[in-house]
Amino acid sequence: MAAPSTHVVNVGRKPVRDYVFEVIVNFQEGVDKVVVKGYGRYISKAVDVYVRLKSRLGESIDVDNIEINSEKRGVKLIPYISITVVRKY
Amino acid sequence: MAAPSTHVVNVGRKPVRDYVFEVIVNFQEGVDKVVVKGYGRYISKAVDVYVRLKSRLGESIDVDNIEINSEKRGVKLIPYISITVVRKY
Repeated sequence: MAAPSTHVVNVGRKPVRDYVFEVIVNFQEGVDKVVVKGYGRYISKAVDVYVRLKSRLGESIDVDNIEINSEKRGVKLIPYISITVVRKY
Repeated sequence: MAAPSTHVVNVGRKPVRDYVFEVIVNFQEGVDKVVVKGYGRYISKAVDVYVRLKSRLGESIDVDNIEINSEKRGVKLIPYISITVVRKY
């Protein structure tokens, strides 16, 4: 059996709806899990992407896991969020 | 037996370290669970509060739950994050 496919969407400067569409297209193409990831000030936007996705797709998606942590870049700790979204049907 | 005490810290305009101190003081005063909550663009800051708290308190705290959702305010959907932090010892 093939391993479930996962795709990572890195949230940055583009408008929220671009990332929402990217996730929807991923699911449409058969991806099982999409990780919506945002660093620093893009954490808020990553959550916004999830909220808008949920209001569009409703019960057909679910949050599998939410991770908050930080990565060291030079001397700075950059916080991030990883929201793992799964398609139920 | 008394129910475990919970305190909510609403992250807003103050500097990150103010909220970090508020959570530490809560734990010091015997609160068992602290919910770090941030709306809209303060979601990033709420995650930053948790990350700095973790780097200060290390293994003595843990994330109990992370909720991301939205609240309707007028016609707008405002996304938020609720990070429930527990003191282990």
